[in-house]
Amino acid sequence: MDSCLFCKLALHEIPSTTLFEDERTVVFLDINPVRPGHALVISKAHAPDLLASSREDLHAVMDTVQKIAPAVVQATGALGCNVTANVGAAAGQVIFHTHLHIIPRHEEDGLAPWPHESATSEQREALGEQIRRLL
Amino acid sequence: MDSCLFCKLALHEIPSTTLFEDERTVVFLDINPVRPGHALVISKAHAPDLLASSREDLHAVMDTVQKIAPAVVQATGALGCNVTANVGAAAGQVIFHTHLHIIPRHEEDGLAPWPHESATSEQREALGEQIRRLL
Repeated sequence: MDSCLFCKLALHEIPSTTLFEDERTVVFLDINPVRPGHALVISKAHAPDLLASSREDLHAVMDTVQKIAPAVVQATGALGCNVTANVGAAAGQVIFHTHLHIIPRHEEDGLAPWPHESATSEQREALGEQIRRLL
Repeated sequence: MDSCLFCKLALHEIPSTTLFEDERTVVFLDINPVRPGHALVISKAHAPDLLASSREDLHAVMDTVQKIAPAVVQATGALGCNVTANVGAAAGQVIFHTHLHIIPRHEEDGLAPWPHESATSEQREALGEQIRRLL
Protein backbone atom coordinates (compact mmCIF):
# COMPACT_ATOMS: atom_id res chain seq x y z
CA MET A 1 0.00 0.00 0.00
CA ASP A 2 1.58 3.25 -1.13
CA SER A 3 1.02 5.20 2.07
CA CYS A 4 1.97 2.41 4.50
CA LEU A 5 5.25 2.84 6.39
CA PHE A 6 5.77 -0.89 6.87
CA CYS A 7 5.09 -1.63 3.19
CA LYS A 8 7.90 0.83 2.44
CA LEU A 9 10.16 -0.85 5.01
CA ALA A 10 9.38 -4.25 3.50
CA LEU A 11 10.50 -2.90 0.13
CA HIS A 12 13.58 -1.30 1.72
CA GLU A 13 12.43 2.09 0.52
CA ILE A 14 13.10 3.33 4.07
CA PRO A 15 16.33 2.43 5.87
CA SER A 16 16.11 0.11 8.86
CA THR A 17 18.27 -2.25 10.89
CA THR A 18 17.09 -5.40 9.15
CA LEU A 19 17.73 -8.61 11.08
CA PHE A 20 16.21 -11.16 8.74
CA GLU A 21 14.16 -11.48 5.60
CA ASP A 22 12.50 -14.35 3.78
CA GLU A 23 9.81 -14.75 1.14
CA ARG A 24 6.93 -13.52 3.28
CA THR A 25 8.46 -11.68 6.27
CA VAL A 26 10.97 -9.02 7.29
CA VAL A 27 12.40 -8.36 10.77
CA PHE A 28 13.96 -5.09 11.90
CA LEU A 29 14.75 -3.28 15.15
CA ASP A 30 12.16 -0.82 16.47
CA ILE A 31 13.55 2.72 16.37
CA ASN A 32 11.79 3.47 19.69
CA PRO A 33 12.34 0.25 21.59
CA VAL A 34 10.63 -0.67 24.85
CA ARG A 35 13.94 -2.42 25.54
CA PRO A 36 17.11 -2.59 23.45
CA GLY A 37 16.69 -5.41 20.96
CA HIS A 38 12.93 -4.79 20.57
CA ALA A 39 12.32 -6.30 17.13
CA LEU A 40 9.34 -6.14 14.80
CA VAL A 41 8.38 -9.07 12.61
CA ILE A 42 6.20 -7.91 9.73
CA SER A 43 4.51 -9.67 6.85
CA LYS A 44 5.53 -8.38 3.44
CA ALA A 45 1.93 -8.57 2.29
CA HIS A 46 -0.19 -5.68 3.49
CA ALA A 47 -3.02 -6.40 5.90
CA PRO A 48 -4.20 -3.96 8.57
CA ASP A 49 -3.50 -6.33 11.47
CA LEU A 50 -2.66 -9.87 12.49
CA LEU A 51 -6.29 -10.99 12.50
CA ALA A 52 -6.74 -9.80 8.92
CA SER A 53 -3.66 -11.54 7.47
CA SER A 54 -3.93 -14.69 5.37
CA ARG A 55 -3.21 -17.95 7.18
CA GLU A 56 -0.08 -18.34 5.07
CA ASP A 57 1.24 -14.94 6.14
CA LEU A 58 0.23 -15.53 9.76
CA HIS A 59 2.09 -18.85 9.81
CA ALA A 60 5.14 -17.32 8.13
CA VAL A 61 5.24 -14.48 10.65
CA MET A 62 5.14 -16.96 13.53
CA ASP A 63 7.79 -19.19 11.96
CA THR A 64 9.99 -16.11 11.80
CA VAL A 65 9.22 -15.26 15.44
CA GLN A 66 10.39 -18.75 16.43
CA LYS A 67 13.57 -18.24 14.44
CA ILE A 68 14.40 -14.71 15.58
CA ALA A 69 13.28 -14.50 19.21
CA PRO A 70 15.98 -16.83 20.62
CA ALA A 71 18.68 -14.76 18.89
CA VAL A 72 17.20 -11.51 20.23
CA VAL A 73 17.13 -12.98 23.74
CA GLN A 74 20.67 -14.33 23.50
CA ALA A 75 22.20 -11.19 21.98
CA THR A 76 20.69 -8.96 24.66
CA GLY A 77 21.54 -11.29 27.54
CA ALA A 78 17.83 -11.48 28.31
CA LEU A 79 16.03 -14.23 30.22
CA GLY A 80 12.90 -14.29 28.11
CA CYS A 81 10.73 -12.16 25.88
CA ASN A 82 7.22 -10.99 25.21
CA VAL A 83 5.72 -11.66 21.80
CA THR A 84 2.88 -9.23 21.28
CA ALA A 85 0.49 -7.99 18.65
CA ASN A 86 -1.62 -4.91 19.22
CA VAL A 87 -4.83 -5.10 17.20
CA GLY A 88 -6.61 -1.78 16.88
CA ALA A 89 -5.79 1.72 18.09
CA ALA A 90 -7.42 1.03 21.47
CA ALA A 91 -4.91 -1.79 21.93
CA GLY A 92 -1.96 0.46 21.14
CA GLN A 93 -1.59 -0.33 17.44
CA VAL A 94 0.09 2.58 15.65
CA ILE A 95 1.04 1.19 12.24
CA PHE A 96 -1.85 -0.59 10.57
CA HIS A 97 0.17 -3.32 8.89
CA THR A 98 0.55 -6.81 10.38
CA HIS A 99 3.45 -6.96 12.83
CA LEU A 100 4.50 -8.67 16.02
CA HIS A 101 6.76 -7.20 18.69
CA ILE A 102 9.54 -9.26 20.24
CA ILE A 103 10.60 -7.56 23.48
CA PRO A 104 13.55 -9.07 25.35
CA ARG A 105 13.05 -9.19 29.11
CA HIS A 106 15.27 -9.20 32.17
CA GLU A 107 14.37 -9.66 35.84
CA GLU A 108 13.27 -6.38 37.43
CA ASP A 109 13.53 -4.44 34.18
CA GLY A 110 10.79 -2.05 35.25
CA LEU A 111 8.14 -3.29 32.82
CA ALA A 112 5.18 -3.91 35.09
CA PRO A 113 2.61 -6.54 34.13
CA TRP A 114 -0.95 -5.32 33.77
CA PRO A 115 -3.08 -5.80 36.89
CA HIS A 116 -5.41 -8.77 36.99
CA GLU A 117 -8.97 -8.71 38.22
CA SER A 118 -10.87 -11.67 39.50
CA ALA A 119 -13.97 -13.07 37.84
CA THR A 120 -16.48 -15.41 39.41
CA SER A 121 -17.31 -18.62 37.60
CA GLU A 122 -20.83 -17.21 37.02
CA GLN A 123 -19.40 -14.10 35.35
CA ARG A 124 -17.11 -16.24 33.22
CA GLU A 125 -19.85 -18.64 32.21
CA ALA A 126 -22.19 -15.79 31.21
CA LEU A 127 -19.51 -14.09 29.11
CA GLY A 128 -18.33 -17.42 27.75
CA GLU A 129 -21.83 -18.17 26.49
CA GLN A 130 -21.92 -14.79 24.68
CA ILE A 131 -18.57 -15.49 23.02
CA ARG A 132 -19.47 -19.06 22.03
CA ARG A 133 -22.64 -17.82 20.32
CA LEU A 134 -20.49 -15.67 18.03
CA LEU A 135 -18.27 -18.54 16.83
CA MET B 1 2.68 -33.73 31.44
CA ASP B 2 1.18 -34.99 34.68
CA SER B 3 2.01 -31.96 36.78
CA CYS B 4 1.04 -29.29 34.22
CA LEU B 5 -2.11 -27.28 34.93
CA PHE B 6 -2.79 -26.53 31.26
CA CYS B 7 -2.32 -30.18 30.28
CA LYS B 8 -5.04 -30.97 32.81
CA LEU B 9 -7.25 -28.17 31.42
CA ALA B 10 -6.71 -29.50 27.90
CA LEU B 11 -7.94 -32.91 29.08
CA HIS B 12 -10.86 -31.25 30.94
CA GLU B 13 -9.61 -32.75 34.18
CA ILE B 14 -10.02 -29.27 35.68
CA PRO B 15 -13.20 -27.25 35.05
CA SER B 16 -12.93 -24.12 32.93
CA THR B 17 -15.09 -21.84 30.82
CA THR B 18 -14.17 -23.42 27.52
CA LEU B 19 -14.86 -21.26 24.48
CA PHE B 20 -13.59 -23.48 21.70
CA GLU B 21 -11.73 -26.69 21.07
CA ASP B 22 -10.28 -28.39 18.01
CA GLU B 23 -7.77 -31.12 17.30
CA ARG B 24 -4.72 -29.20 18.53
CA THR B 25 -6.01 -26.28 20.63
CA VAL B 26 -8.34 -25.32 23.48
CA VAL B 27 -9.55 -21.82 24.43
CA PHE B 28 -10.90 -20.85 27.83
CA LEU B 29 -11.43 -17.69 29.90
CA ASP B 30 -8.65 -16.66 32.30
CA ILE B 31 -9.88 -16.94 35.89
CA ASN B 32 -7.92 -13.77 36.77
CA PRO B 33 -8.52 -11.62 33.70
CA VAL B 34 -6.70 -8.41 32.90
CA ARG B 35 -10.04 -7.42 31.38
CA PRO B 36 -13.34 -9.35 31.26
CA GLY B 37 -13.17 -11.67 28.25
CA HIS B 38 -9.42 -12.27 28.64
CA ALA B 39 -9.05 -15.62 26.89
CA LEU B 40 -6.18 -18.11 26.74
CA VAL B 41 -5.48 -20.14 23.63
CA ILE B 42 -3.40 -23.20 24.49
CA SER B 43 -1.95 -26.02 22.46
CA LYS B 44 -3.07 -29.47 23.59
CA ALA B 45 0.46 -30.77 23.15
CA HIS B 46 2.77 -29.86 25.98
CA ALA B 47 5.69 -27.54 25.27
CA PRO B 48 7.12 -25.11 27.83
CA ASP B 49 6.45 -22.03 25.69
CA LEU B 50 5.48 -20.71 22.26
CA LEU B 51 9.04 -20.81 20.96
CA ALA B 52 9.38 -24.49 21.88
CA SER B 53 6.16 -25.66 20.21
CA SER B 54 6.17 -27.55 16.94
CA ARG B 55 5.38 -25.50 13.83
CA GLU B 56 2.13 -27.44 13.47
CA ASP B 57 1.04 -26.54 17.00
CA LEU B 58 2.20 -22.94 16.59
CA HIS B 59 0.19 -22.58 13.38
CA ALA B 60 -2.85 -24.22 14.95
CA VAL B 61 -2.70 -21.88 17.96
CA MET B 62 -2.57 -18.85 15.65
CA ASP B 63 -5.42 -20.14 13.47
CA THR B 64 -7.46 -20.40 16.64
CA VAL B 65 -6.47 -16.87 17.68
CA GLN B 66 -7.75 -15.59 14.33
CA LYS B 67 -11.01 -17.46 14.88
CA ILE B 68 -11.60 -16.52 18.51
CA ALA B 69 -10.30 -12.97 18.91
CA PRO B 70 -13.01 -11.28 16.81
CA ALA B 71 -15.70 -13.01 18.89
CA VAL B 72 -14.01 -11.98 22.15
CA VAL B 73 -13.83 -8.38 20.91
CA GLN B 74 -17.44 -8.35 19.73
CA ALA B 75 -18.89 -10.02 22.84
CA THR B 76 -17.14 -7.56 25.15
CA GLY B 77 -17.96 -4.48 23.06
CA ALA B 78 -14.22 -3.88 22.73
CA LEU B 79 -12.48 -1.87 20.02
CA GLY B 80 -9.45 -4.14 19.66
CA CYS B 81 -7.30 -6.60 21.54
CA ASN B 82 -3.77 -7.51 22.48
CA VAL B 83 -2.50 -10.94 21.51
CA THR B 84 0.43 -11.75 23.76
CA ALA B 85 2.74 -14.57 24.71
CA ASN B 86 5.04 -14.30 27.71
CA VAL B 87 8.12 -16.45 27.21
CA GLY B 88 10.04 -17.10 30.41
CA ALA B 89 9.44 -16.07 34.02
CA ALA B 90 11.22 -12.73 33.47
CA ALA B 91 8.59 -11.97 30.80
CA GLY B 92 5.72 -12.77 33.15
CA GLN B 93 5.13 -16.38 32.14
CA VAL B 94 3.49 -18.28 35.01
CA ILE B 95 2.31 -21.55 33.46
CA PHE B 96 5.03 -23.22 31.41
CA HIS B 97 2.79 -24.62 28.71
CA THR B 98 2.32 -22.88 25.35
CA HIS B 99 -0.45 -20.30 25.50
CA LEU B 100 -1.42 -16.95 24.05
CA HIS B 101 -3.46 -14.29 25.80
CA ILE B 102 -6.26 -12.47 23.99
CA ILE B 103 -7.07 -9.31 25.97
CA PRO B 104 -10.00 -7.20 24.73
CA ARG B 105 -9.32 -3.47 24.82
CA HIS B 106 -11.38 -0.30 25.13
CA GLU B 107 -10.30 3.32 24.86
CA GLU B 108 -8.95 4.63 28.17
CA ASP B 109 -9.31 1.28 29.92
CA GLY B 110 -6.42 2.08 32.23
CA LEU B 111 -3.94 -0.39 30.71
CA ALA B 112 -0.91 1.76 30.07
CA PRO B 113 1.49 0.87 27.25
CA TRP B 114 5.08 0.24 28.27
CA PRO B 115 7.33 3.28 27.88
CA HIS B 116 9.54 3.47 24.82
CA GLU B 117 13.16 4.55 24.78
CA SER B 118 14.98 5.92 21.81
CA ALA B 119 17.92 4.21 20.16
CA THR B 120 20.39 5.81 17.79
CA SER B 121 20.98 4.19 14.43
CA GLU B 122 24.51 3.34 15.62
CA GLN B 123 23.15 1.53 18.69
CA ARG B 124 20.67 -0.32 16.54
CA GLU B 125 23.22 -1.32 13.94
CA ALA B 126 25.65 -2.61 16.60
CA LEU B 127 22.96 -4.70 18.28
CA GLY B 128 21.54 -5.77 14.94
CA GLU B 129 24.93 -7.15 13.94
CA GLN B 130 25.10 -9.18 17.16
CA ILE B 131 21.65 -10.63 16.54
CA ARG B 132 22.31 -11.42 12.87
CA ARG B 133 25.44 -13.35 13.84
CA LEU B 134 23.29 -15.67 15.94
CA LEU B 135 20.89 -16.57 13.12
